[in-house]
Amino acid sequence: MAAWETNVRKVIPYTPGEQPDCADIIKLNTNENPYPPSSAVERILREIPAEILRKYPDPTSGALVTALSEYYHMPEEQIFVGVGSDDVLAMSFLTFFNGKEPILFPDITYSFYDVWAELFRIPYECQPLDENFQIRTEDYLRPCGGIVIANPNAPTGIAKELTELERIVAGNPGVIVIIDEAYIDFGGESAVCLLPKYDNLLVVQTFSKSRSLAGMRIGYAFGNQKLIKYLNDAKYSFNSYTMNTLTIAVGVEAVRDEAYFQETVGKVVAAREWTKKELLRLGFTFPDSQSNFIFASHPKYPAKELFEGLKRQGIYVRYFAKPRIDNYLRISIGTDEEMKTLIAFLEKYVGENL
Amino acid sequence: MAAWETNVRKVIPYTPGEQPDCADIIKLNTNENPYPPSSAVERILREIPAEILRKYPDPTSGALVTALSEYYHMPEEQIFVGVGSDDVLAMSFLTFFNGKEPILFPDITYSFYDVWAELFRIPYECQPLDENFQIRTEDYLRPCGGIVIANPNAPTGIAKELTELERIVAGNPGVIVIIDEAYIDFGGESAVCLLPKYDNLLVVQTFSKSRSLAGMRIGYAFGNQKLIKYLNDAKYSFNSYTMNTLTIAVGVEAVRDEAYFQETVGKVVAAREWTKKELLRLGFTFPDSQSNFIFASHPKYPAKELFEGLKRQGIYVRYFAKPRIDNYLRISIGTDEEMKTLIAFLEKYVGENL
Repeated sequence: MAAWETNVRKVIPYTPGEQPDCADIIKLNTNENPYPPSSAVERILREIPAEILRKYPDPTSGALVTALSEYYHMPEEQIFVGVGSDDVLAMSFLTFFNGKEPILFPDITYSFYDVWAELFRIPYECQPLDENFQIRTEDYLRPCGGIVIANPNAPTGIAKELTELERIVAGNPGVIVIIDEAYIDFGGESAVCLLPKYDNLLVVQTFSKSRSLAGMRIGYAFGNQKLIKYLNDAKYSFNSYTMNTLTIAVGVEAVRDEAYFQETVGKVVAAREWTKKELLRLGFTFPDSQSNFIFASHPKYPAKELFEGLKRQGIYVRYFAKPRIDNYLRISIGTDEEMKTLIAFLEKYVGENL
Repeated sequence: MAAWETNVRKVIPYTPGEQPDCADIIKLNTNENPYPPSSAVERILREIPAEILRKYPDPTSGALVTALSEYYHMPEEQIFVGVGSDDVLAMSFLTFFNGKEPILFPDITYSFYDVWAELFRIPYECQPLDENFQIRTEDYLRPCGGIVIANPNAPTGIAKELTELERIVAGNPGVIVIIDEAYIDFGGESAVCLLPKYDNLLVVQTFSKSRSLAGMRIGYAFGNQKLIKYLNDAKYSFNSYTMNTLTIAVGVEAVRDEAYFQETVGKVVAAREWTKKELLRLGFTFPDSQSNFIFASHPKYPAKELFEGLKRQGIYVRYFAKPRIDNYLRISIGTDEEMKTLIAFLEKYVGENL
């Protein structure tokens, strides 16, 4: 070991889903939207003068914050934007979770939470989901350094009632409670309506799923003005300009195209509901997902074998070799056609293996 | 104060230069390149299909790393990319500066270094530049937790001899020495050639200045394979995808257009040398800048008044109200025409105030 390695912050990073570089696969492994972004995004890329890229971006991402402010009827001072909701969450962990008590989040949830805690050396305790993969409110009504809850939760897809989330926020006035709503546009009730009542609440959302812009990395958060100021102070202490000029321009166009947003979200939700019925018919079980994925298990066919069988057919889904969930597949919702191909394969697989 | 504020990481952020949103100003305040990016950048924006933005970017930014690898004849395993050199530097501070000894950097340098140290609670000690704004090698040959040196330094523009930098790197094998080469393409000798000899060296560069892409936020670093692996582990523990799909595509095009790069850098350097002569003629003094800015002072006219006078004429330069440098202006190099306008104004100002 080199002498300088003593002072290195050594971490085990989060592993994102595979991004295979071939055109003819069915990619249902990273919860991307199967539809392209708004045509307004294509238009802005054709029109934007490259000349402006020689100058630094607006450090406040003002145009994007204004567009979000108008869409959500939220004062600009209550909006924070970042490089995907990952950046927003990482900044929030760094800014708000500096207490001695452990922060709390479920044992089965977005697997980046413990990675951020480890990176920033934040003590944490995972609270086990119940036997039906439900978050138990009581687990989050105890002294702690902060709370993070994904709603709908990932990879289960289960949405928690807003009244229960409110109990958690109200029960922890001394710490920040983050509700990670990456999938909220596909179902569940947003906690945004709780913001006027609670100054310790941060609600995080993203353009990656419902707005078909995973490739642009745009996330945002709503909170009270003071909380957002602290978050921005930390952000400006890390990198003055996290959002580049093209990202800001593209984000503005995407958030303004309400009709297209409603149309594509509607199609994904309809395909999800169709897929649920088909999976049930084939003997799969799964929590009732409110997101753009289904977390499914089959009583007869091990998930790992199914995962590999699907991959051989060019159908990529996500498999987690982790306790409690190693017999589940997380299947992102694709186009109607993609879901039909998936079901046809599974039907054959189940039939052949009977 | 709300109860949750106890656990907040409270920081005083870095203040970037103004980004006034008006077309007819002469903007010499943030060291941007006065020339547009390569025409290949414009072309890729016109051609890139918006459809691909629905998918996550390549988390490794593979295409960009490959382009840099080919350009610099550097193995891909020795290259790290980030959201501007600020992101690269922030990640490096977080990854490498975790010792108990203070890290060292000059008292007059890029004013983000102490902001990062404060954000990550890294002990630090500023080493005063000598009376000619030179970095004294001896100040960096002592026990410390790490070293950061901008070369050429900002806002002085002074380049340090490579043999002196090598003494600092060689004299500190137990810690990481970062050489921040944001301005190296305009002058000075890069420390990249020292990499084969020293495993504790990290060299950071950027597309923001010499490649006219401040608006895209692309920075990169070179180091030995093990060091870059640690940096990537931290990066992947913070945000899997920091570089978006458009950024990667634009960066590849920019790095490949060698002829345009040489042409624009040549023009900026020529304008800098012309401006030096003119400033001398008007009685200004300044260190011999090797960067794309000049750090100038006039024995008769206070910098703050000049700054305000220039601003009233729509000419923006940078003024720092800080000890030792509060009688200096940092003037970025613009087009030939812009520099002529600046000099014409200063000539009149000096004449009128005689």
